[in-house]
Amino acid sequence: MASQQPARPAAPAPRPTRRSEKSRRAIYDAALALVVEAGYPRTTIEGIAARAGVGKQTIYRWWPSKAEVLMEAFLDLAGHPPRDAAQEPSAIPDTGDLAADLKAVLRATVDELKDPRFDAPSRALAAEGLVDEALGRQYVAKLLEPSLQLYVQRLRSAQEAGDLRPDLDPRIALELFVSPLAQRWLQHTGPITYAYTDTLVDYALYGLAPRSR
Amino acid sequence: MASQQPARPAAPAPRPTRRSEKSRRAIYDAALALVVEAGYPRTTIEGIAARAGVGKQTIYRWWPSKAEVLMEAFLDLAGHPPRDAAQEPSAIPDTGDLAADLKAVLRATVDELKDPRFDAPSRALAAEGLVDEALGRQYVAKLLEPSLQLYVQRLRSAQEAGDLRPDLDPRIALELFVSPLAQRWLQHTGPITYAYTDTLVDYALYGLAPRSR
Repeated sequence: MASQQPARPAAPAPRPTRRSEKSRRAIYDAALALVVEAGYPRTTIEGIAARAGVGKQTIYRWWPSKAEVLMEAFLDLAGHPPRDAAQEPSAIPDTGDLAADLKAVLRATVDELKDPRFDAPSRALAAEGLVDEALGRQYVAKLLEPSLQLYVQRLRSAQEAGDLRPDLDPRIALELFVSPLAQRWLQHTGPITYAYTDTLVDYALYGLAPRSR
Repeated sequence: MASQQPARPAAPAPRPTRRSEKSRRAIYDAALALVVEAGYPRTTIEGIAARAGVGKQTIYRWWPSKAEVLMEAFLDLAGHPPRDAAQEPSAIPDTGDLAADLKAVLRATVDELKDPRFDAPSRALAAEGLVDEALGRQYVAKLLEPSLQLYVQRLRSAQEAGDLRPDLDPRIALELFVSPLAQRWLQHTGPITYAYTDTLVDYALYGLAPRSR
């Protein structure tokens, strides 16, 4: 996993490779568990350290704030889906069938959103991001936007292949099928199923208005 | 404003008309202000009463919980847009031009989402609804879903007029342009402008894939 620590030109941050892997794992697990149990505002570096069985200076040496610890814990979580621990976050497949590729990745997202190990901490962090704008922007910049950019890449290649209207903005286009799933998950506005995400892809690609044939 | 209290067959709830309008207004204002300043968990009936200058029994007589007070305060807020105090929440206009009607109502929503009087309390309540599932479901049932049903009605009449594919589910279709705006607002994932919501409507109605002409 890439380090998310900001570069410090004068005194470079310690490399993650120098961290004890066992401590790092214990710290991530403690941070994710605490944010679920106590909520973000009551999660502290001290609490994470106590639960992880490390000194709090160990945490401060590697991360400047609890927000940074949690962001890295989430990046780690998102990079290791429980169904396939070897899987890395990567580009959306391009089989040449745009609808099929989007449906496949959204079905995988449905699985992830329904997994309690992902759902509970993600929800706690997202909730705090709604009212703590600085945290929210960090959440978006580090966790959400990079995954949305994978859709941008796939939609751009679809434009090159002539499968997508050449004049549209991929960054907006992806929201037609990604945001409805996000809202149903976050706000419990409706059930989340494969049939639902398949339908979103079909509606978005082919439009709600009738096509003249 | 219609009462949102659940019907109690044995002992009907007091009618809103019996409430002192001045006290009701003071209680709504206090509840909205407190949820912004202190957050939902630290907002109490006692705090609302103190700020509104009423006894807490006055509040308990009319509302069973702080959640109910806040829901009614929001319904009142949503029913009185600041730009036109006489406007009531109502059906989406049907001028016969579906794209124009949807763009107009989404532009009005952009105005509302950018109004601090609406934004701050709505955001606080939505954030708590993410982690407090009972509150979240109440928020959706009383505040969100009724406004989404106005889109369902407009989309159904568009289906009857032949402006929308007859086979599609209006409740899912509306999410293609409503959810992206909701996510940008809630999570600060991108700017909210008229041009953006106009684009969402065009993309949703006419599809992302090229149309054969």
